[in-house]
Amino acid sequence: MPIPTPNYHPPFNITRASHVILTVKDLDASYNHYVEILGLIQTERTADTLYLRGIDERAHHSVVLRKSNAPGTVDRIGLRVFMDEDLDKAYAHFNEIGTPCRWVDVPFQGKTLHFEDPNGMPVELCARMDQAESLHDKFQHHRGGHPKAIDHFQMPCQNVTLATQFYAQLGFRISEYTDSDDESQLWGTWLQRKGNPHDIVFTAGKGPALHHFAMQSKDASTIMHITDVVGSMGLEDIIDRQPSRHGIGNAMFVYFRDPDGHRMEFYDAHYQMIDIDHEPIRWPLSNTKRSSIWGVPASRRWYFETSPFTGVERHQSEFPGEPMTLEKMFGS
Amino acid sequence: MPIPTPNYHPPFNITRASHVILTVKDLDASYNHYVEILGLIQTERTADTLYLRGIDERAHHSVVLRKSNAPGTVDRIGLRVFMDEDLDKAYAHFNEIGTPCRWVDVPFQGKTLHFEDPNGMPVELCARMDQAESLHDKFQHHRGGHPKAIDHFQMPCQNVTLATQFYAQLGFRISEYTDSDDESQLWGTWLQRKGNPHDIVFTAGKGPALHHFAMQSKDASTIMHITDVVGSMGLEDIIDRQPSRHGIGNAMFVYFRDPDGHRMEFYDAHYQMIDIDHEPIRWPLSNTKRSSIWGVPASRRWYFETSPFTGVERHQSEFPGEPMTLEKMFGS
Amino acid sequence: MPIPTPNYHPPFNITRASHVILTVKDLDASYNHYVEILGLIQTERTADTLYLRGIDERAHHSVVLRKSNAPGTVDRIGLRVFMDEDLDKAYAHFNEIGTPCRWVDVPFQGKTLHFEDPNGMPVELCARMDQAESLHDKFQHHRGGHPKAIDHFQMPCQNVTLATQFYAQLGFRISEYTDSDDESQLWGTWLQRKGNPHDIVFTAGKGPALHHFAMQSKDASTIMHITDVVGSMGLEDIIDRQPSRHGIGNAMFVYFRDPDGHRMEFYDAHYQMIDIDHEPIRWPLSNTKRSSIWGVPASRRWYFETSPFTGVERHQSEFPGEPMTLEKMFGS
Amino acid sequence: MPIPTPNYHPPFNITRASHVILTVKDLDASYNHYVEILGLIQTERTADTLYLRGIDERAHHSVVLRKSNAPGTVDRIGLRVFMDEDLDKAYAHFNEIGTPCRWVDVPFQGKTLHFEDPNGMPVELCARMDQAESLHDKFQHHRGGHPKAIDHFQMPCQNVTLATQFYAQLGFRISEYTDSDDESQLWGTWLQRKGNPHDIVFTAGKGPALHHFAMQSKDASTIMHITDVVGSMGLEDIIDRQPSRHGIGNAMFVYFRDPDGHRMEFYDAHYQMIDIDHEPIRWPLSNTKRSSIWGVPASRRWYFETSPFTGVERHQSEFPGEPMTLEKMFGS
Repeated sequence: MPIPTPNYHPPFNITRASHVILTVKDLDASYNHYVEILGLIQTERTADTLYLRGIDERAHHSVVLRKSNAPGTVDRIGLRVFMDEDLDKAYAHFNEIGTPCRWVDVPFQGKTLHFEDPNGMPVELCARMDQAESLHDKFQHHRGGHPKAIDHFQMPCQNVTLATQFYAQLGFRISEYTDSDDESQLWGTWLQRKGNPHDIVFTAGKGPALHHFAMQSKDASTIMHITDVVGSMGLEDIIDRQPSRHGIGNAMFVYFRDPDGHRMEFYDAHYQMIDIDHEPIRWPLSNTKRSSIWGVPASRRWYFETSPFTGVERHQSEFPGEPMTLEKMFGS
Repeated sequence: MPIPTPNYHPPFNITRASHVILTVKDLDASYNHYVEILGLIQTERTADTLYLRGIDERAHHSVVLRKSNAPGTVDRIGLRVFMDEDLDKAYAHFNEIGTPCRWVDVPFQGKTLHFEDPNGMPVELCARMDQAESLHDKFQHHRGGHPKAIDHFQMPCQNVTLATQFYAQLGFRISEYTDSDDESQLWGTWLQRKGNPHDIVFTAGKGPALHHFAMQSKDASTIMHITDVVGSMGLEDIIDRQPSRHGIGNAMFVYFRDPDGHRMEFYDAHYQMIDIDHEPIRWPLSNTKRSSIWGVPASRRWYFETSPFTGVERHQSEFPGEPMTLEKMFGS
Repeated sequence: MPIPTPNYHPPFNITRASHVILTVKDLDASYNHYVEILGLIQTERTADTLYLRGIDERAHHSVVLRKSNAPGTVDRIGLRVFMDEDLDKAYAHFNEIGTPCRWVDVPFQGKTLHFEDPNGMPVELCARMDQAESLHDKFQHHRGGHPKAIDHFQMPCQNVTLATQFYAQLGFRISEYTDSDDESQLWGTWLQRKGNPHDIVFTAGKGPALHHFAMQSKDASTIMHITDVVGSMGLEDIIDRQPSRHGIGNAMFVYFRDPDGHRMEFYDAHYQMIDIDHEPIRWPLSNTKRSSIWGVPASRRWYFETSPFTGVERHQSEFPGEPMTLEKMFGS
Repeated sequence: MPIPTPNYHPPFNITRASHVILTVKDLDASYNHYVEILGLIQTERTADTLYLRGIDERAHHSVVLRKSNAPGTVDRIGLRVFMDEDLDKAYAHFNEIGTPCRWVDVPFQGKTLHFEDPNGMPVELCARMDQAESLHDKFQHHRGGHPKAIDHFQMPCQNVTLATQFYAQLGFRISEYTDSDDESQLWGTWLQRKGNPHDIVFTAGKGPALHHFAMQSKDASTIMHITDVVGSMGLEDIIDRQPSRHGIGNAMFVYFRDPDGHRMEFYDAHYQMIDIDHEPIRWPLSNTKRSSIWGVPASRRWYFETSPFTGVERHQSEFPGEPMTLEKMFGS
């Protein structure tokens, strides 16, 4: 099965992964986790919501934590478009192709459009946000893992092919992908708009759900440091996957779980994917080095536990991957 | 004086700084410098030309070294456009505004357009290149400073305002800029298309000329390592500016001079500049921390020695900066 | 049970862990592993033996690989004494306490004394070696994991208490130790002479045998790099334990297995233990963070596979540790 | 002139550089500098004194700051001996050779002996200190440059040869030294007891005075980070010498000046010097790479400004070095 071709003249200009809105039980606990331990910056706290950002970010928020009585879900992910006029073009396009969408007012953001993608995932688009101070050159405030900026989201979903076709039509390009060894079924796609390996990732699984959101750290030393901090605080249980290097994207990583079970990745750096002649990299499903070039298996909890989208039912993918491969993924 | 406003609907799509063509005296000496010591990768060597690239790059070349009897000059810098159709749009646009341009055949590149910018700098545009293997995930071949990819070019020129207006019209955005303390005169502009702080930089000086081209290194440790390698080989004279951190762009850097005097910067990382609401950062000329946040002065040779463009006469800028400030730049 | 008290007026002056002599099947394969991949330096190769050292070392050898028809064993470990006169004092002391010892001629070493410790482990002592060039300031030769110098040896043995008493009598101090939760049985001791956490380590197990020898790397970045190199060469099977940080000694580590199954650790740095008032750190056996502060379990093969000493029978320890704890060590 | 030979059977056992007592004007300002910015740990604050230590240190203090109306001086440097019995041996030895010494009571220290060395430098010896918690494995408290432990002191003095002979007699070994190009005059000696390149350093100059004390940082990344922190706080004036790598000792370094002008070095790592056959490294005075292998000149203020010892007159060395070489040292 051929992988979907990107639309090089998309109907409107999506520029990057922008923000994620998570529901949580206790804002103080979330503040402690993300700000005190991991090193994100708090821009604002309202009665029921924490607005956080990375040290490089001028946007008001990239991680939004909303207090909820039914915590542990994801309200929606946010993508940035370039200009407000792109929102109008998006509205027209979604109406034309029958994608549900509507205008909404969102605090601290400019004009915002909500839509649901073909797998039922809720997404919002905006071009502008209130501005905050970038702390990229205030090294005295770089603590913990001091993430620079949000980078991407990974979502298991029922139909990877459908998701990929939808976003390819919106101009997303595939940087890397995984399919069955006989190339007949697509298992996962790494899709990008901002010129590095990924803004959004879809993998076959029970979805739509959020596997993790990722923020970029300075370098491998910083990733080791934040893991050491967490370990020496006696919080090793929140290390959901220990540091290693992904084959896909070639980034050093560590994954943490927050008090509500949401998963965040710190990764070090990516390569550039801008040129028209840059072809996707294929990883057959049986090549488990895509997950760790060191051959370090993931845990079942890293693999299968995810955050559902608020009020959205999940469905099992028709192609979860071969059982043998999964066993190899987890060690035995 | 207000800084030029970027054109958000440019006539064609330039995507990034792509390559530079330098003239050299001795290909073996250049190979030794760039490949054996600094860690670039050789893609191809013809009778009179070396084609080099960074470890992440799939493009055939980002640094081209052409043997010449009059070495030490720059034939031209190359910018990438997204698609071949952008070249046709560029050709039409340049003809419309009276910018000299012409189609040329260039080995290992797709369709290529040459033009001269308002300061007389020769530039070439192409969308495609022959493809080479990316070594981003072949760590065994990461040697010396193992630069990932080319990032930007810095050019002194006679008229910074004119250059900035020209490239802003082509869609370049200003990330940071330096002007006189009274804001009446523009001294330097850092311009970008690919979403980080700069693809091309113009500063007031004797030009057009190339001050340096820059490639991205993995991290600060790598920058220290390549400086240590050069120092322990007894080649400290080629360290043109010792490692420090720029205020502008916030990158750790080191500068080396090649056997023909061309200057290359290794830097560690940049921030992202993608959003419409991301405003340029201003640095008054008297704030010398723009050059080093550690307060480390540059040398006069780093400041004033440049590579002229082949066959292009240089003219002194009308606004070289205040003498007092320059003294502060060099230490005393 | 109280831990043994060090003898602050030892009969002779042992200064540090010095070298190890391993038997191997194929010198070329060993050369490829240790020199080409891991970055040790070859000092000399004779008909049947490779002599290797770290980049900081002036001593002729710290890792000796002897070709053998029965490879995969350890001929002996070597400790350095300060002066030749210490060898004479050692000879007198061993004769006095009934420890088997004898003078031997060893190529490239000064006067050398062999002895067998109470668990039957063969050890050699010398004060001098032929000298080689230190490459500590030749950064151009730092490749792979470029270990600085040998640091310590870890040995499972039948009787940890007996071993600890013997070496404490020779002036070794305990930096850290593991015992049963009720403090009744000693499970492992980390012993040092050179002022950092350990030169020799004894743990309860089937022994005497060598679990690993360790060399110091420059920093965490270097440890990540050598692991990336091994992974990207497709050699992930030789990564015997992925990078993490030990609780005991507080060092970042990675373990590799050589073609004959010998295990080498790279670690980043240690703390200093010099002062008389520096007390040992206790780790109850059930606290598995002693092995990884990140909570990363070891594999069974890392735990149980060891290199026997050539011609020395191994005996199971009387206190291997509680089965429940061991399960926790390996994950599930 | 031959360099002094170490006494391998010294009259008592000095183990390492231990602590320094500095006079300061304002304890709050000193606290802000050393604890808040540079990352040392405060053990205790009394009415007139701050007691600080590194993150690895269990000793109560390695940097002592005493409030004084005549600040900017050094009360004395402290060396550690192994056992209290070494203090008695020291007392006997000093009396025998006519070195002025006396017993004193010092808070938070065990039995303490004061003496004055041949250049008039005040030194104290002790074997024991009150113990504090080591934070080596509490990564959440590693801030700024988070120095691990004190390492060495550098002192200009009137007579380098005399100083070297005195300390060599006490068992100090020379790791590296600088002399005139014709080998007739000794200019500087790097002397050690703890097995790395230096505990105390003597150079020809106006002395006795303290040029700097040095603490070990984790790695080069940490040294860059603390320099970035200082620069981004607008405190670049306290960067007394920017990061580079010394030829002597082969360490990456940065030097800061405190509010009273005292100079502290952070350096990354050293090699081991333990073996009897480890010969000193010679650096002719004209080889300025001993100061920076990158060829980065020092400033005059780094070179000539020092902290005098409280109440001790300074005298100019008879061999300050050739003027030509000094010019080369500073660039000009």
